Amino acid sequence: MQACVRPMSFLRHPVLRSCRALRAQLPVRALHGSSAPAARGRASLLAAAGAALVAGLTAGYSHLQRAELAARIPSPGDEMEQLCADFMALPVTPMEQLREHRDDMKSRMELMIMGTQAEVCRALAQADGAASFTVDRWQRAEGGGGISCVLQDGKVFEKAGVNVSVVHGYLSEESIRQMKSRGKSLKTKDGKLPFCAMGVSSVIHPKNPHVPTIHFNYRYFEIEEADGNRQWWFGGGTDLTPTYLDQEDVVHFHQTLKDACDKHSPTFYPKYKKWCDDYFFINHRGESRGVGGIFFDDLDFASKEELFAFVESCAKAVVPCYLPIVEKHKNDSFTPEEKLWQQLRRGRYVEFNLVYDRGTKFGLATPGSRIESILMSLPLTARWEYNHIPPEDSKEGEILKVLRKPRDWVH
Amino acid sequence: MQACVRPMSFLRHPVLRSCRALRAQLPVRALHGSSAPAARGRASLLAAAGAALVAGLTAGYSHLQRAELAARIPSPGDEMEQLCADFMALPVTPMEQLREHRDDMKSRMELMIMGTQAEVCRALAQADGAASFTVDRWQRAEGGGGISCVLQDGKVFEKAGVNVSVVHGYLSEESIRQMKSRGKSLKTKDGKLPFCAMGVSSVIHPKNPHVPTIHFNYRYFEIEEADGNRQWWFGGGTDLTPTYLDQEDVVHFHQTLKDACDKHSPTFYPKYKKWCDDYFFINHRGESRGVGGIFFDDLDFASKEELFAFVESCAKAVVPCYLPIVEKHKNDSFTPEEKLWQQLRRGRYVEFNLVYDRGTKFGLATPGSRIESILMSLPLTARWEYNHIPPEDSKEGEILKVLRKPRDWVH
Repeated sequence: MQACVRPMSFLRHPVLRSCRALRAQLPVRALHGSSAPAARGRASLLAAAGAALVAGLTAGYSHLQRAELAARIPSPGDEMEQLCADFMALPVTPMEQLREHRDDMKSRMELMIMGTQAEVCRALAQADGAASFTVDRWQRAEGGGGISCVLQDGKVFEKAGVNVSVVHGYLSEESIRQMKSRGKSLKTKDGKLPFCAMGVSSVIHPKNPHVPTIHFNYRYFEIEEADGNRQWWFGGGTDLTPTYLDQEDVVHFHQTLKDACDKHSPTFYPKYKKWCDDYFFINHRGESRGVGGIFFDDLDFASKEELFAFVESCAKAVVPCYLPIVEKHKNDSFTPEEKLWQQLRRGRYVEFNLVYDRGTKFGLATPGSRIESILMSLPLTARWEYNHIPPEDSKEGEILKVLRKPRDWVH
Repeated sequence: MQACVRPMSFLRHPVLRSCRALRAQLPVRALHGSSAPAARGRASLLAAAGAALVAGLTAGYSHLQRAELAARIPSPGDEMEQLCADFMALPVTPMEQLREHRDDMKSRMELMIMGTQAEVCRALAQADGAASFTVDRWQRAEGGGGISCVLQDGKVFEKAGVNVSVVHGYLSEESIRQMKSRGKSLKTKDGKLPFCAMGVSSVIHPKNPHVPTIHFNYRYFEIEEADGNRQWWFGGGTDLTPTYLDQEDVVHFHQTLKDACDKHSPTFYPKYKKWCDDYFFINHRGESRGVGGIFFDDLDFASKEELFAFVESCAKAVVPCYLPIVEKHKNDSFTPEEKLWQQLRRGRYVEFNLVYDRGTKFGLATPGSRIESILMSLPLTARWEYNHIPPEDSKEGEILKVLRKPRDWVH
């Protein structure tokens, strides 16, 4: 194994400095075969990734070999290279393959989600000011892989993960069951179903309880049925989870999403806003996870072209719908009680993600999935107090009222 | 509604002091109809329970009316009253009914689990020294109810919940599906299946990372099929989740459980030890939740009498298998890094409980369940760091090795 070789353009941006450090560290640890105890706690993040290589703990995936990676880098001046130069890492699919099938929706979607990842990471790193993203590249033994970008314990963000995954292979029985249960008709061959799924997925948990948590996910799915028929669909959404209600923030958030939707059809926003309220519902608590946003799945009612353009508009709306809210509140003062309430709400976030979230369930049921990337959505810290019920006329009671009865924020 | 009237014997024990306080507070808040903001955070626990009554937030259950309760108290000197005098509260089922059906397994099991709850709460309160249990009595609209005893933020225990529930009604479709999926043949009538389920269930999370978490649960189930046939079974188990490995503790724990099992059959311990290892497995992490113990379900292979005696022995083993470990370590010093590792392991505990635990799933799928009692098992605080992998030769690596490959601790 040789030391990391990447085109300079990948190392230029400040966001990528820690990525460079990680890359430099990994091969060294691997070469020395070191197993000396690393510093514990937060400081151990980089070391831990290295240790995983040494210890062989990364069952089902492995970091891409650096030498092989270098060989795949396209010649300078290539248009696709220019595009990729701003990404957090090279795309999951080899460049030649992307170039060869540049008109295929799979290639276009992969480039779009890589671009979204980079754009969001850059904006978050800038807003944070202190911390930067570590970039993990992983491969899935069964096919495909991903790029996980994580910022942890920053000045503004407690934990921010922006993950790209491009996986293919055969759907697990559990996944087929889940898809059929939501009405899909799927013709399997010997119970098998080849699939390709790709998406960008992110959850951003800030430190300050006055800055809301955001989640977004945009994905594309292809399935090849037994008779050679190809089914495809898009899915995605962006939703906001504040600890306290700031009406102006929520209106800005929804208005930005509505504008993105309205460019494509006036029916989209109301439909996908309602879908979002219905989906992000913690049934056993009788509460929504947050103040909603948009959510959609199984979209195949128009051409690939039209739906891709819509999904791209939604993905491009992530930074403008969220970053102004971060900037507005990131320096707000807060009390220990407000922090405590945030921690209790984080507990609810964990409940939704582990009990109901379709993406998490799909991930946990897909053999060879990278668990760390799936559960990246969980907050750094969470809290469960027995029977904690805030007074109705408190600020905590105010947000609970909204969570129990979703509102229309824009018309 | 009138102020709480209970026989003096219920208020005598120190463990019950906070229960008395809670009882005194509830009717007052209800009478005054107060909705003034209560102190936030930890101090709000008692107030919150009161506020729930006022706000009508306790959908699906309600605190038993005090006047009605007083009327049901048996005459002094009654043998069953003597037995109940040591409980944390009056049993869920009215005393006259228990007395009338005293030989029915349902009555005997209810008295046994009430006794176990009181015995464990008393031992824990004594070990903690500083905190005492709050007692919540709740009713399920669909039938039955429960007694939840919770000690939160004590000197030794971060969160300790010991819950009794005695519920009846009709099984939900989801629960029927879950039961069928584990091989039960159930003859429903119009898709309905009357059931009665009761059990004592507990999770105890200590503060000190050198004191392990314990979970136990002993339950009895009856189902009446469409043809009038009654199916019944016992289930249960006790298992330990240490943050760090102390071999002596684990051997003591398993030996105590083995002794309880061996009194009934030499085959029980090895069989239920393996079942425990298989059941408490976090599949997506490739790790056991802890160092195991015993676990069994659907036991109906012998007479009710024999199986009840076995379950009773297991329940009686809870205090002797755990409390010596608490006493040994409760004053151990620990570092912030050890506390951090405990918090990460608490995260795994949450993952198991929300993703896999059969009891939690049954609870979440049963309409009218009291969520606070079901999710009482979650720790006060938990943590998820991205890709945290401790060095193999560290103390953290040592326990991970055990979790990845369960051992035989006693022979």
